Amino acid sequence: MTKTRLEAFSDGVLAVAITLLVLDLRLEPEQSGGLLDQLVAAWPSFAAYVVSFLVIGVIWVNHHSIFRLATTVDRPLLFWNLILLMFVTTIPFTTATLAGALAEDSPADIRVAAVLYGAVSTGFAVAFTLVYGRITLALVRAGSMPGAARRSALIRFGAGTLFYPLLTVVGVINAPAMLVGFAALSVFYLFNQTGARE
Amino acid sequence: MTKTRLEAFSDGVLAVAITLLVLDLRLEPEQSGGLLDQLVAAWPSFAAYVVSFLVIGVIWVNHHSIFRLATTVDRPLLFWNLILLMFVTTIPFTTATLAGALAEDSPADIRVAAVLYGAVSTGFAVAFTLVYGRITLALVRAGSMPGAARRSALIRFGAGTLFYPLLTVVGVINAPAMLVGFAALSVFYLFNQTGARE
Amino acid sequence: MTKTRLEAFSDGVLAVAITLLVLDLRLEPEQSGGLLDQLVAAWPSFAAYVVSFLVIGVIWVNHHSIFRLATTVDRPLLFWNLILLMFVTTIPFTTATLAGALAEDSPADIRVAAVLYGAVSTGFAVAFTLVYGRITLALVRAGSMPGAARRSALIRFGAGTLFYPLLTVVGVINAPAMLVGFAALSVFYLFNQTGARE
Amino acid sequence: MTKTRLEAFSDGVLAVAITLLVLDLRLEPEQSGGLLDQLVAAWPSFAAYVVSFLVIGVIWVNHHSIFRLATTVDRPLLFWNLILLMFVTTIPFTTATLAGALAEDSPADIRVAAVLYGAVSTGFAVAFTLVYGRITLALVRAGSMPGAARRSALIRFGAGTLFYPLLTVVGVINAPAMLVGFAALSVFYLFNQTGARE
Repeated sequence: MTKTRLEAFSDGVLAVAITLLVLDLRLEPEQSGGLLDQLVAAWPSFAAYVVSFLVIGVIWVNHHSIFRLATTVDRPLLFWNLILLMFVTTIPFTTATLAGALAEDSPADIRVAAVLYGAVSTGFAVAFTLVYGRITLALVRAGSMPGAARRSALIRFGAGTLFYPLLTVVGVINAPAMLVGFAALSVFYLFNQTGARE
Repeated sequence: MTKTRLEAFSDGVLAVAITLLVLDLRLEPEQSGGLLDQLVAAWPSFAAYVVSFLVIGVIWVNHHSIFRLATTVDRPLLFWNLILLMFVTTIPFTTATLAGALAEDSPADIRVAAVLYGAVSTGFAVAFTLVYGRITLALVRAGSMPGAARRSALIRFGAGTLFYPLLTVVGVINAPAMLVGFAALSVFYLFNQTGARE
Repeated sequence: MTKTRLEAFSDGVLAVAITLLVLDLRLEPEQSGGLLDQLVAAWPSFAAYVVSFLVIGVIWVNHHSIFRLATTVDRPLLFWNLILLMFVTTIPFTTATLAGALAEDSPADIRVAAVLYGAVSTGFAVAFTLVYGRITLALVRAGSMPGAARRSALIRFGAGTLFYPLLTVVGVINAPAMLVGFAALSVFYLFNQTGARE
Repeated sequence: MTKTRLEAFSDGVLAVAITLLVLDLRLEPEQSGGLLDQLVAAWPSFAAYVVSFLVIGVIWVNHHSIFRLATTVDRPLLFWNLILLMFVTTIPFTTATLAGALAEDSPADIRVAAVLYGAVSTGFAVAFTLVYGRITLALVRAGSMPGAARRSALIRFGAGTLFYPLLTVVGVINAPAMLVGFAALSVFYLFNQTGARE
C-alpha cells in the first residue's frame, strides 16, 4: 500500500462526503406558506451546511498536511485512517439531525442533536491524533524525528482536539453558538496549520 | 499542499456534484395519469438538469484553465477555492428547487426559486473571480506577470461575472428564459475560454 | 486541458453514476407481506440494476479504449464528451423508471419506460460516435491516420450504435427482452473491443 | 487498459459506495418520543453502518494488495473486477435492509435480511477469488510464478471465502452475531493480509 493510494482513496471519500451534504438541503413542501417562507424556515439547514462544508474542507487540507510527513504506510495507520474516514462520512447525518432539531425548535432535541454533532467531531479529532501519532512514530523509528520532538508535537496536536468536547458543551447550552464555534475553528485551522507543520 | 492535490479534490467534488443532479430527476408517482403524462409534467426537471449539467461541466473546464496558471497554492487560495466548491455543490439544490417551482406553476414561487438559482450562480462567479485574483496575484509577486496585465485581465474576468446577476434579473421576469441564458452562457464559455488564457 | 484531466474527470463521473444505481434498490415497506415477498416483488429493480451496471461499466472500458487514441483535447471534444457524460449520468433515472414500471406491471407504462431507457442509450451511443469522430479527425489532421481508414472505422463504429434503437424497438414489444439484449450487448463489447482498436 | 486506470476507477467506486452508507443513517421522524429515543431505536442502523464501513474499507485495502501483483489487465480480468464492484456497491442496500429488519424486530424478516447480507458478501468473496485467480494465471503464463505456488495460494485464498457462507448461516440464527463476525473478519483481514502476499 503506497501513500499515494491512501491519499487518493481518502480524497475520494472526503470529496463524496462534502458533496453529499447538499442532499440534506431539502425543503418541506407540505409546510404552509410560499417558497420564500419555506426557505426562511430552513435556515438551520443552510447554516449547518456551511459549517459542515468548512469542517470537512479543513479536514481535507489538514489530512494532506499530516500525510506529507508520512514515509511508510503500515496496517495500524490504514486502520486509524479508516476510522477517521468513518467519523467524517457520518457528518452529513449529524448535520441533518442538528438542522432538523433546530427547524423543529424543540429544546430537548436540539440538545441531543448538538451532543451527537459534537461527539462525532470529537471522534474524528481523536482519530486524527491517532493517525498523527502513528505517522510520527514511524518517523521516530526511522531516526528522522527525535522522540522528544514527537512528544511535544503530539501534545500541541492533542491540545487542539480539546476544542471539540469544549464546543460540544457549548452546544448543550446554545447550538447555534456551537455551529459558529465550529466554523471559526475550521477557518482558524485553515489559515493556521495544525501541529503537523513543526 | 500541491496544485495537483487541489485539482484532484476539486475534480472529485465537481464530478460528484454533476452526477448528483440525476437524483432530482424523480417522477411523482401519486400524480394522476400514466407515465407519459408524468414525464411530460416533469419537463422543468429535465430542462433544469441539462442546464445545470452544462453549468457545472463548464465550471470544471474553466477551473482547469485557471489553475494551469497557478504556480503556488497558499492558504487564501485554498479558502477561496473551498468557497467556490461550496457554491457549486449547492447547484443540485437550487436546480431541484427551481424545477419544483416550475412544475407547480406558482408565479410567486418561480420568482423566488429563480432568484435563488441566480444568487448561487452569482456566488460562484464572484468566488471564481477571487480565486483568479489570488492566482494572478502570486504571478505578479513572482514577477512572471506585469501588474497592469493582471489588472486588465481581472477586469475582463470580472466583467463576465456581471452576466450572472443580469440573468438573475431575467429570471424574475421569465425563469425559462433565464435557464436558456445560463445554457447559452455556459456553451459560450466552453468554446470561448475565460480571461484566464490571456 | 490535458487528456489525463479529461479522463480523470470522466472516470469520476462514471464511478459516481455506476454507484448511484444502488440508491434505486429500495423496497416498498408499505407493501403487504414479509421481506421475502418484497424482495421477490422487487425483481425488476435487481434485473435493471445488473444490466445498467454492466452498461455503465462497459462504457467506462470503451471510453478508455477510445481516449487512448487521442493526442489532443480541443473544445469540441470537451463538449461532446460532456454530452456523453450527461446521457450516462441519466441512466440511474431511466433504470429506476423502467424498474418501477415493470414492478407496477402496467403495459402502457412499461412501453414508455422502455422507450425512455432505449432513447437515452441511443443518445450516449450517438455522443460516443461523435467523440470518436472528433478524436480520429485530429489524428487525420495530424497525419497519423489516413482519411480512408477513419471513414471505414467510423462506419464500423457507427454501425454498432444501430443496436441501440433496435433494442429500443424490442423494448416496446418486450421490456425484459430488451434488458437481456442490453446485458448481452455490453458483455459482447467488453470482450470484443469497439472499432477504436483498428 | 492500464492497471493504473483500473485501480483508479475501482478506488472511485469503492470510495462512493463506502460514503453512500451514510444515506441510510436516517431517523424515522414519525416515531413517537424525542430524538434520543429515535437514536436509541436506530441502533441497528449504526451497528450495520460501522460493520459495512469496515467491510468495504478492507475490500479496498485487499484490492490493492492483489492488484500490486498484476502485470497485465486483460478482458476477463476487467469483467471479474466489474462483477466484484457490482457486489460491493450493493452493500449499502443489503446494509439498509438488514438494519430495517432489525429495527422492526420481526424474526422472519431478520432471517431473510441476514441471508441477503451474507449472500452478497459471499458473492464478492467469490468474485475476489476469481479476480485473484485471473491475476495469478497471468503470472504463471509469464513464467514469474510456478503453477504449484499458484494452486496452493488459490487454495489458501479460497479457504478464506468459506467464512462468508459460514457467517451467513450464523446470521440465520442470530443476525447481530453475524454482524460482529463480519466486523471481526474485516479487522482480521486488515491486519493479516490475504493470501495475495505470498
